[in-house]
Amino acid sequence: MRLEDANVSIVGLGLIGGSLTLALDGRCRRMVGVDVSHEARRWAAGPAPLDKVTSDLAEGLQDCDLCILATPVGVIVDILGQIGKELPSPRFVLDVGSTKNTVVQAMNRLPENVHAVGGHPFGGKETSGPWTSEAGLFGDCLFALVPTDRTTPEALELAEQVVTALGAKVWLTHAEDHDRRVALTSQLPFVLAVSLMAMAKERASADPELWDTAASGFLDTTRLAASSVPMMRDILLANRPHVQAALHETLAWLEQFTDRLSNEDIAWISTQLSGHRQARQSLTTPMVNTQAAYESHDLWPGA
Amino acid sequence: MRLEDANVSIVGLGLIGGSLTLALDGRCRRMVGVDVSHEARRWAAGPAPLDKVTSDLAEGLQDCDLCILATPVGVIVDILGQIGKELPSPRFVLDVGSTKNTVVQAMNRLPENVHAVGGHPFGGKETSGPWTSEAGLFGDCLFALVPTDRTTPEALELAEQVVTALGAKVWLTHAEDHDRRVALTSQLPFVLAVSLMAMAKERASADPELWDTAASGFLDTTRLAASSVPMMRDILLANRPHVQAALHETLAWLEQFTDRLSNEDIAWISTQLSGHRQARQSLTTPMVNTQAAYESHDLWPGA
Repeated sequence: MRLEDANVSIVGLGLIGGSLTLALDGRCRRMVGVDVSHEARRWAAGPAPLDKVTSDLAEGLQDCDLCILATPVGVIVDILGQIGKELPSPRFVLDVGSTKNTVVQAMNRLPENVHAVGGHPFGGKETSGPWTSEAGLFGDCLFALVPTDRTTPEALELAEQVVTALGAKVWLTHAEDHDRRVALTSQLPFVLAVSLMAMAKERASADPELWDTAASGFLDTTRLAASSVPMMRDILLANRPHVQAALHETLAWLEQFTDRLSNEDIAWISTQLSGHRQARQSLTTPMVNTQAAYESHDLWPGA
Repeated sequence: MRLEDANVSIVGLGLIGGSLTLALDGRCRRMVGVDVSHEARRWAAGPAPLDKVTSDLAEGLQDCDLCILATPVGVIVDILGQIGKELPSPRFVLDVGSTKNTVVQAMNRLPENVHAVGGHPFGGKETSGPWTSEAGLFGDCLFALVPTDRTTPEALELAEQVVTALGAKVWLTHAEDHDRRVALTSQLPFVLAVSLMAMAKERASADPELWDTAASGFLDTTRLAASSVPMMRDILLANRPHVQAALHETLAWLEQFTDRLSNEDIAWISTQLSGHRQARQSLTTPMVNTQAAYESHDLWPGA
């Protein structure tokens, strides 16, 4: 099926669902939005390019070819459990939740006439609500597609059309691999950002001037702590085993770091700092901030 | 003494010292740069607005009215111990190290004819080397000035002129308060960023695809891990008691978080996430991303 011929229903009009409606504007036959929140529906009735907006899931899935689930992960799993029972069966289902194991398990239990693919766009920001949506939120991002027992070639092809329409790049992977990785690269950074805010808030209650010393380094490191609470709560619970493993490893490293610092083990600390600095630099543009780059661009007037 | 009449020597031509030379260009009578690194001196002989560059400290402090120490904190303390002995005595000394206790103690032991103030500009970035310098690095930043036993009104006034010339704002504080705060808002974020890189590097050694999932959230949270190693090593050692205290508190919080997650204590986790999210949002522009702001700006076409 071609995306431009599809009736698409987007369930969950937050930052992600809202940005999907903006990015898919004109790319499908008809677009329906579903959200239980009055504020989200008010946005949807305004700037959003939706043909219809409703709070009623069954109504929203009527005559639906492709249902895109963009609610918190726990709600995605709940809705999947109702499809073909309390809810009508869309022909195709794609989700955009940030963890995939529990979603894929729920997709595996869908009626056999529903063709479903798990998805996760690696784009976003720390705001929430559709009023912070951006049509280009997923541009140039990786978009993980995860096969399920209900994934047919046609379902995968339609999902790929959605990814392409968003300007993102398809990354085929497996639920378990995906979830183990994002525990490290998404949920752990979030928990560390929250821990830093927890420490600072506690100290600042007795010493409000503390906030004056919170410069750009502190702001960057804590940015994720402003993420949507229902979204992150569901993600942490859905990916609990992997998040716990990541936290245990981090606790062990931080304990060792604290011990080495107590013993003024300068050699160990320097080795750690150097190795991880190098790794971090190679994640972005390794040449930009090096002397070599400076020299290679012939910027040395005295040279 | 007026800054524009002063012979200024800047000791340490890294990112901070280099940016100081650019920002103080034309603001003082004469400017001399001192660095042991050949690469830094090569930069200083080129784009830097310096009247003289040397690797010899004694030569660099000859006829110096104001010496600004911009080396790693451990070296600042060493140099302060040599002033008036192996090294000539400048009339005024200001440092720009990120921790103040050990520096102020060393300033207290200076000869009585040397007038010294501790300083710390709350600006910077995670690059290092003078080739990454920016004249505007300290613009609109707070600049902590910390009195010592050698601080005279004239020394404080000259330091304030430097701060003003940089476009920064004076913040008078005490060494102990300063160091307790920056342990939380500078060193703790740095250590957490390094811990995150340590975890990711370890995992990626067996699963290189992990890096594909490192999106903007991971990059922001780990940005500080790219900071200069000699600078951060010295800072951690100089501020060891406060950093250790901050790490112990963080470990306790992370352990509790991990336990609550194991027990699926959703109420506790939600409360933590909500409280710290709100605190983080209020650090920047609290209205920008809220529905209230959206509505107040009359952006709702359907309203």
